[in-house]
Amino acid sequence: MIAEARIRALRPSDHARVIAVIDQWWGGRPMARMLPRLFFDHFTDTSFAADRDDALTGFLVGFVSPARPGEAYIHFVGVHPGERSHGLGRRLYGTFFDVVRARGCTRVRAVTSPVNTGSVAFHRRMGFRLEPGDAEVGDIPVATGYDGPGQDRVRFVRDLRS
Amino acid sequence: MIAEARIRALRPSDHARVIAVIDQWWGGRPMARMLPRLFFDHFTDTSFAADRDDALTGFLVGFVSPARPGEAYIHFVGVHPGERSHGLGRRLYGTFFDVVRARGCTRVRAVTSPVNTGSVAFHRRMGFRLEPGDAEVGDIPVATGYDGPGQDRVRFVRDLRS
Repeated sequence: MIAEARIRALRPSDHARVIAVIDQWWGGRPMARMLPRLFFDHFTDTSFAADRDDALTGFLVGFVSPARPGEAYIHFVGVHPGERSHGLGRRLYGTFFDVVRARGCTRVRAVTSPVNTGSVAFHRRMGFRLEPGDAEVGDIPVATGYDGPGQDRVRFVRDLRS
Repeated sequence: MIAEARIRALRPSDHARVIAVIDQWWGGRPMARMLPRLFFDHFTDTSFAADRDDALTGFLVGFVSPARPGEAYIHFVGVHPGERSHGLGRRLYGTFFDVVRARGCTRVRAVTSPVNTGSVAFHRRMGFRLEPGDAEVGDIPVATGYDGPGQDRVRFVRDLRS
């Protein structure tokens, strides 16, 4: 039996470890640019890493929104391909929910790309609902150009009180 | 005489306006990827735009560090090329300093690329000192690989009490 990965606070030194593997974890998609060092320096109170035997198995970067009272935001989550479907994503999200709920948040938002159907399904399983968009891809509502020209996004929100 | 640009809180709707001009303001360098929508949704309490006659002339994205008590961080500042050397960058920084000082911050940090000698000179004029690095470019201390492989950074810190 394999020991469960240990979840702990993200550290600045995790930045290099994450950047070294993240594009590979995402099947070659260039994702490193979404994770500048600032997230690993300043959001370590609401961001987490999981490791087993000193090997990184997953991480989550999120924060309490300073401008939107009661709201938290999950920016990025990554799980080692060999660790998927074993509940680590669920544990990382659950850890984040607990921490931001204790700080008074009542809802969490997140976004993903419409091509990432696995992420849409995961967020639905985690209790998120899809926010309305101005277009649809299949039956998925999409906010076109939400993150810039051509950067459409599916937007999620979850009530933390339920 | 040209009216002074008006500084106001950044708004989510500024994202599209900034993304449309930012690479051009930076002389063709691809900077838009550094400004995902999240900064325009969640950090509007400590981020600012400047405009004159409804035209965007500059902006600053910054935040109070949730994980480092007393610290604030400036992520990005942009000024229209035709508006430079007229004090708008100084006014944007001054507005940020006042807001984060009122929220208990005693220091501000920022980083830039070693190639951006204009930014190094600007930060020095604004009262920042350069933090130690593990290498030097000219006489500038540089933290090699600070933002990932090949992504060296000059790091600045300013005491807000002086």
